[in-house]
Amino acid sequence: MDKSSRVPLYLQLMEDIIRKIENQVYVENQQLPSERELCDIYGLSRITVRQALQELEREGYIYKLHGKGTFVATKSINQNLINLYSFTEEMKKMAKTPTTKVLSFSEIELEEHLANQLKLEPYEEVYQVVRLRLADNEPLMYETSYLPKKHFPDLSATDLVERPMYEVFKEDYQIVVTKAVETFLASLIREKEAKQLKVEKNQPAMLLKRHAYYQDKLIEYTISVARGDKFAYTVELN
Amino acid sequence: MDKSSRVPLYLQLMEDIIRKIENQVYVENQQLPSERELCDIYGLSRITVRQALQELEREGYIYKLHGKGTFVATKSINQNLINLYSFTEEMKKMAKTPTTKVLSFSEIELEEHLANQLKLEPYEEVYQVVRLRLADNEPLMYETSYLPKKHFPDLSATDLVERPMYEVFKEDYQIVVTKAVETFLASLIREKEAKQLKVEKNQPAMLLKRHAYYQDKLIEYTISVARGDKFAYTVELN
Repeated sequence: MDKSSRVPLYLQLMEDIIRKIENQVYVENQQLPSERELCDIYGLSRITVRQALQELEREGYIYKLHGKGTFVATKSINQNLINLYSFTEEMKKMAKTPTTKVLSFSEIELEEHLANQLKLEPYEEVYQVVRLRLADNEPLMYETSYLPKKHFPDLSATDLVERPMYEVFKEDYQIVVTKAVETFLASLIREKEAKQLKVEKNQPAMLLKRHAYYQDKLIEYTISVARGDKFAYTVELN
Repeated sequence: MDKSSRVPLYLQLMEDIIRKIENQVYVENQQLPSERELCDIYGLSRITVRQALQELEREGYIYKLHGKGTFVATKSINQNLINLYSFTEEMKKMAKTPTTKVLSFSEIELEEHLANQLKLEPYEEVYQVVRLRLADNEPLMYETSYLPKKHFPDLSATDLVERPMYEVFKEDYQIVVTKAVETFLASLIREKEAKQLKVEKNQPAMLLKRHAYYQDKLIEYTISVARGDKFAYTVELN
């Protein structure tokens, strides 16, 4: 560390750790030295080391496990918000194998106000489908979808286990998503989701609400709980 | 509650509470009955009441204060990601009064790897500016900006206290943002941010990284920590 430099010390430390991660001195999921050890190694104060680690965590280079220490993060998925995309297609592009686990499948009705919120008709019959989305067997998203029954009269859980949902829509019902409106909110992973996603609860979650349309007809409303440590979404504004 | 209905009980309860909020039976920041009281009032099980409250919290209708109870949320800000936007302009559109508090202003340098991350030149001199953004005196965002000194040679903290940053860019340097690339990540509010934002730490935060350009020159890199209970971002995909 160069204490006379105009580069703040915590940035110098960040720099050094990032370089070690990029040069694979530290590899994915490897444990980093403890805060105390980093202080000794670099001759820095606890406050400086802590700031560097916090920034590295924010930047997605490392993650902390409660009571266990600090580890090198696996690369996260950056989704460009330009065109319509599907989980299945995006994972394939990244040479990952996408799979889906159907956790529940039920037919329900929604009362007036809630139906309005979801932009569905009041008392309309909908399928409520809860699915876990995985890539290379790692659980990444916990999704709850509402699908109006009138558009997909014979839909079954089996269909959705065997094929991607949009493939079922297309092959069995000649319905293709032509437009989607997505809203992003920051939230926390709740206990039941944490169990499925195999992370600790109250970790950051990106909440993604998708209204999907086919020729101006709403065909899908999905709330996705995406692991905050795994997903980033990018948009270009002009 | 209609226990014979095909509308699940937790959805019926959500419906009833949403209706009361929309009809202002429950007003903003008012405390809701406790879980136990809701069980008694509606004749529902604890598990059903809890599920309804969790969904209402997710949907942004209510918020919980640790050890204090459940309260009606104030409306959140929905930012459409279509065109370039600024905090100042957006707040004015919503008839709110935007203000900015400059928390720190310093000149620093960035080493190679970090500069690359920020798309800046290595060892380039940059201003590091930390600002708190408020609307109607309510703190909403904690922002850290990096501005290359070469583009804004005489910038001072005073400039940024007195005028919105983009106004300073335009009036003093004839620089207008023509393109911005924004990346969204879910994170948690850290202690130092929580103090400024006047919320509890480890609450959800939307992390927003903005690279702003003027004629293909990077003029600003900003990391905004936006309160998760206050902001939603919407994009339309075709």
